[in-house]
Amino acid sequence: MRMSQAAATTTDAPVLCESIEAGIATLTLNRAKARNSLSDALIAALHEAVNRLGTDPAARVIVLEAAGPAFCAGHDLKEMTAHREDADGGKAYFEDLVARCSAMMQAIVRCPTPVIAKVQGIATAAGCQLVASCDLALASHQAHFATPGVNIGLFCSTPMVALSRNVSRKQAMEMLLLGEMIDAQRAEEFGLINQAVPDGMLDEEVHAWARRIASKSSHTLAVGKAAFYDQLEKSLGDAYDYAGRVMAANMMARDAAEGISAFIEKRDPTWEDR
Amino acid sequence: MRMSQAAATTTDAPVLCESIEAGIATLTLNRAKARNSLSDALIAALHEAVNRLGTDPAARVIVLEAAGPAFCAGHDLKEMTAHREDADGGKAYFEDLVARCSAMMQAIVRCPTPVIAKVQGIATAAGCQLVASCDLALASHQAHFATPGVNIGLFCSTPMVALSRNVSRKQAMEMLLLGEMIDAQRAEEFGLINQAVPDGMLDEEVHAWARRIASKSSHTLAVGKAAFYDQLEKSLGDAYDYAGRVMAANMMARDAAEGISAFIEKRDPTWEDR
Amino acid sequence: MRMSQAAATTTDAPVLCESIEAGIATLTLNRAKARNSLSDALIAALHEAVNRLGTDPAARVIVLEAAGPAFCAGHDLKEMTAHREDADGGKAYFEDLVARCSAMMQAIVRCPTPVIAKVQGIATAAGCQLVASCDLALASHQAHFATPGVNIGLFCSTPMVALSRNVSRKQAMEMLLLGEMIDAQRAEEFGLINQAVPDGMLDEEVHAWARRIASKSSHTLAVGKAAFYDQLEKSLGDAYDYAGRVMAANMMARDAAEGISAFIEKRDPTWEDR
Repeated sequence: MRMSQAAATTTDAPVLCESIEAGIATLTLNRAKARNSLSDALIAALHEAVNRLGTDPAARVIVLEAAGPAFCAGHDLKEMTAHREDADGGKAYFEDLVARCSAMMQAIVRCPTPVIAKVQGIATAAGCQLVASCDLALASHQAHFATPGVNIGLFCSTPMVALSRNVSRKQAMEMLLLGEMIDAQRAEEFGLINQAVPDGMLDEEVHAWARRIASKSSHTLAVGKAAFYDQLEKSLGDAYDYAGRVMAANMMARDAAEGISAFIEKRDPTWEDR
Repeated sequence: MRMSQAAATTTDAPVLCESIEAGIATLTLNRAKARNSLSDALIAALHEAVNRLGTDPAARVIVLEAAGPAFCAGHDLKEMTAHREDADGGKAYFEDLVARCSAMMQAIVRCPTPVIAKVQGIATAAGCQLVASCDLALASHQAHFATPGVNIGLFCSTPMVALSRNVSRKQAMEMLLLGEMIDAQRAEEFGLINQAVPDGMLDEEVHAWARRIASKSSHTLAVGKAAFYDQLEKSLGDAYDYAGRVMAANMMARDAAEGISAFIEKRDPTWEDR
Repeated sequence: MRMSQAAATTTDAPVLCESIEAGIATLTLNRAKARNSLSDALIAALHEAVNRLGTDPAARVIVLEAAGPAFCAGHDLKEMTAHREDADGGKAYFEDLVARCSAMMQAIVRCPTPVIAKVQGIATAAGCQLVASCDLALASHQAHFATPGVNIGLFCSTPMVALSRNVSRKQAMEMLLLGEMIDAQRAEEFGLINQAVPDGMLDEEVHAWARRIASKSSHTLAVGKAAFYDQLEKSLGDAYDYAGRVMAANMMARDAAEGISAFIEKRDPTWEDR
């Protein structure tokens, strides 16, 4: 197992821990006492790690998890409030913060490697957005989700970009206008997560999903993930033109030739990857 | 409680009743004998009321309900049929009717104030569209929904604009091609409504939702609602750029400063609103 | 009953069987031994039949079914693999194949006549895409669905165009990244099919749906189906402008006049159709 502690912080403990084992990279939000809120340092560390792992052949799938009882409570309100003292009342800082956070969320979507959120506790505001931005999400029954910004006068406008691309309009509006917690079962019904898992089984279940994805061709996963999000924003005709070109090119790649041969010959494929 | 009867009609009874109490504005479709079908007068009254309440500080949330056993049976077929006698066979009238009705539906979407549909009975054709156009919808178990135009040779083409932005393609097509009723439970599964509520509890449940929304900052709700529908029509990157600007501006608003301070100080916020 | 065998094949058995009875056209994928995989001949036969039936007044609704235990296993891997021997390694063939298959899928969407998929067994890869491309889909409890291309190094990029327009992002990604089977119950929850039906009742249930659709005005169905898919790709305002014009024109058509009169006079309508 390869382990490292990404992102320098002002304290001894890293805000983000990282390990890679058997193709599965695990990123652990490590600000448990601050309910893993997205401080400037954590946003930067996550963005850097996702970008780097996206091109690391050792990372065939990324699991995004969190230390402590909470998954992620959104932005760090204390850090934000401190900037009210800035000469401009925090305006420049807030604009930059939102831009940095949105860029990190989009880096997850653009990361060639599939990202699975493993949600063991509350995921609120930008924490809920983090779950919505991952490709897949599993949560324990004790996990809860909310976009509660409306309760403090700050509508969850950037979280809703990701949220509203995961759940239906009425469901998104329910979460955004009421600002209340929904449980994992309801999150599954909404489509925000793939599956709600009994509390003691989350580790095992996420590992099983990660292992299965790690067994695929990384080249093929990267081609498919990029095409997935790109084609979603196109008209049906344009999406088919685009996806058709992707598929024909994929067919000519070494891993498709190997995969199809292995399938016909009833043996396991050996991927060349990327 | 402030009460009024919006919209002059040719009879004594108003087609739309209105009241405001404790920040909750209630609009009541009041053509029970005509199953609250959307006559010219009712479309005009609804459009006017929604536009006016959208800028009325006393209306922090709008509940759209209906008198009698039906919620809304769509267009007024008798009024429409009468125009077959027009010199042009009704063409100009129909075009104008559809335009007026679509404008009213979009006024609900653009209304800065959240609108909750309270559906106690059937909601069909443009009545179903009305439910789909609201931000939230609760319905009693005896409520039913349909887009039955196909049964009379007139496909529910404008209702489907709202319907297909609430439910999945297969589900929308099921309602549109078969033209049959679905019950409240199925409507909840489809995402057309937020929740199906036991018959005797609809008043109470809708009031509870309305009260909770009325307790939020109206400024924040208006900012968030507008941003929600705008960002839905953008690509992911554009949506983040747009929502990021909205969020940074929201952060600089008085109600966010107050809300965050109140949260940190563990007290109730006092909204300045808009 | 009118029966024919569309599409010449190199063997005696047609790859696609066709019958029309009481307004219900049935297309039967007839390559049971090859699990109804989409050979060049079958793609061509399906495309031709859908185009032709779309303007055949005798076909008021189309049921797409399959012979044997499988519904459709996607592309014909043996046919594809044979073209690896081409001078260009199959490149030109693959590009052409993907284009022909995508065109056939889009022909189903553009076909003026509603198409119901009747899924009695596995529907995988392009077979799953076929189900997603139909307007409606019913499946027996023993049906299963997958986009398993990732397992052979060939991501289901064109199938995902249709899939991701039927189910939510997390659900689509689950199917695409894991490449595993989901059962009919889960496919219904995802919105990929309209209903999972007990095994012995699929024939009866599909026939009941087809009969009900065949009883509508074909003119109205054609108007509505085309408008449905067109408006989905527009902004809310543009969709309303477009659907409003469609609806006003529909109102002036003979079948709407007849349908509304019949409704008011409480009699069955007599459609002129198209």
